[in-house]
Amino acid sequence: MAAATINHQWRLAARPIGAVKRTDWDFTEEPVTSPADGQVLVKTLYLSLDPAMRGWMNEGKSYVPPVGIGEVMRAGGIGKVIESKDPGFKPGDFVNGTPGMQEYALAAGKQLTRVDPRLAPLPVYLSALGMPGFTAYFGLLDIGKPEAGQTVVVSGAAGAVGAVVGQIAKIQGCRAVGIAGGADKCRYLTEELGFDAAVDYKHSDVKAALRDACPNGIDVFFDNVGGDILDVALTRLARHARIVICGAISQYNNATPVKGPANYLSLLVNRASMTGMVVFDYAKRYPDAVRELGGWMAAGKLKSREHIVEGLQTFPETLQMLFSGANMGKLVLKVASE
Amino acid sequence: MAAATINHQWRLAARPIGAVKRTDWDFTEEPVTSPADGQVLVKTLYLSLDPAMRGWMNEGKSYVPPVGIGEVMRAGGIGKVIESKDPGFKPGDFVNGTPGMQEYALAAGKQLTRVDPRLAPLPVYLSALGMPGFTAYFGLLDIGKPEAGQTVVVSGAAGAVGAVVGQIAKIQGCRAVGIAGGADKCRYLTEELGFDAAVDYKHSDVKAALRDACPNGIDVFFDNVGGDILDVALTRLARHARIVICGAISQYNNATPVKGPANYLSLLVNRASMTGMVVFDYAKRYPDAVRELGGWMAAGKLKSREHIVEGLQTFPETLQMLFSGANMGKLVLKVASE
Repeated sequence: MAAATINHQWRLAARPIGAVKRTDWDFTEEPVTSPADGQVLVKTLYLSLDPAMRGWMNEGKSYVPPVGIGEVMRAGGIGKVIESKDPGFKPGDFVNGTPGMQEYALAAGKQLTRVDPRLAPLPVYLSALGMPGFTAYFGLLDIGKPEAGQTVVVSGAAGAVGAVVGQIAKIQGCRAVGIAGGADKCRYLTEELGFDAAVDYKHSDVKAALRDACPNGIDVFFDNVGGDILDVALTRLARHARIVICGAISQYNNATPVKGPANYLSLLVNRASMTGMVVFDYAKRYPDAVRELGGWMAAGKLKSREHIVEGLQTFPETLQMLFSGANMGKLVLKVASE
Repeated sequence: MAAATINHQWRLAARPIGAVKRTDWDFTEEPVTSPADGQVLVKTLYLSLDPAMRGWMNEGKSYVPPVGIGEVMRAGGIGKVIESKDPGFKPGDFVNGTPGMQEYALAAGKQLTRVDPRLAPLPVYLSALGMPGFTAYFGLLDIGKPEAGQTVVVSGAAGAVGAVVGQIAKIQGCRAVGIAGGADKCRYLTEELGFDAAVDYKHSDVKAALRDACPNGIDVFFDNVGGDILDVALTRLARHARIVICGAISQYNNATPVKGPANYLSLLVNRASMTGMVVFDYAKRYPDAVRELGGWMAAGKLKSREHIVEGLQTFPETLQMLFSGANMGKLVLKVASE
């Protein structure tokens, strides 16, 4: 690398209280350095914007350590190898990893996975063939355990995880019902993704709409949003229902305590369960997921949609889209061209 | 029966709002009638008072239909056969069934189970060798799935179900921690029942006390109370913890909505589950439970304690003891002598 190459970075400046503010971030720069032995220098092309990022900004115990104040914000992404001191990679390789919210990253080779741009466009590796796809795949199949003929309801259904959950449910022979905000998203679910029904939580009585959409109750509820939607879904459970707790985006920006599901005793009445899942636990089985998800995509049974916004500098504003629900499909930041 | 024999009964007069009031009950009487073919006339000896009774008084869908206005209050109990038109029973037999809150009951023979007063005192068949024991047995072993060396925490630990849960946990080689109200109950748990630790929720900081009592976190939380205790327990879960939702006595008298567990996202962080159970689902396996629980009692590993109050007429006041926590052990109403 020429010594003059500059790496722009978003660093966490302060722990947000409630919604994330521009002042919670610092936009910094530093020269790019060369990889040490076993390391690879990667130029970032696409970065994944995830609801989970909000949790990583908080102090305290969670499933991963918080991002430290002054550290580059954690982010998954796709990049191109520029320089390699790991024999497993060479310049020009495309890789999936966790480069962070920056233009260049040094990574140990063992933390990277090679991806093939001929099999799928690169952003798809952050979407249906990446973490969101894996989350849907393991969460629905391993925890939700849907059976053919059962009803699967997913919240945040037009999001990166939700859209895959509903499509896998269809592939399994289930009735797929999505909850999403707005007529456009609902149309997308039923007309483009093949969901059997969609509930517009912004413009309908969710309880009545779920009753109509799930005449035999809900067998699997895959929850990405928490809050009132989870509480309503609890009132519509079928006997022995399984709730997969994948996230709670409605609650992540709360400055006040999280709203607990007041109807949780429906678990007792219906002999139902509610189970949390973290996709990282399934890392050893990602190759299985890629193979099966990729096969479904090739067969035209699974569609992946990305919502791509250009420019690393837009990160703070683009991240807000997740919480306002402005994105449709996986939200991806394009940092550089291939 | 002589035509003059009178059956006194407690009937539901009104659906309570919040705490049950005396005016929600009618004390009625009617003549005892003879059994029809296949029926048995049973004289009630002991009646079981259960937290679940509060739920049966409410309108609306639950795991059993509500008690109708004007109907005799549902209650499990032990009685003596007076007259039988079922060849499987004869006068003098002792039986376990659901006679209801009354002095005499007609029942189909197939709804009765014979019990043997030589193996255990009759009230024990409403306690460790009855529904509370079965609830503890199946809830802990089938849903909680404790492994030797793990930590099992039970709320309502001095109650009929909780006391058996902790003792089975010890038999399984677990660390047993009970949450109960008051020093007397806590001493009973550790000194008489062999719990490793007890947390007095009325006089201690439950969060701090649970941290001290469960240095490796909670692997199984068997919840009988709900509310704040459930919420605190959620903060102390070990990875892959199992929460058994057996009841929520703290919430049954609420006139306002149930307090949902605000910390439920701990299920996600800890890849934990929360599952509801209803003992009736295990009816076919009750004989297995009786055999194993009875064996543990005979071996001195399992103690059963009943809190017996005399007099059918005391029912409304005696039922309140469950909600104020005044009972220690299984609350039983003695209706008549053997």
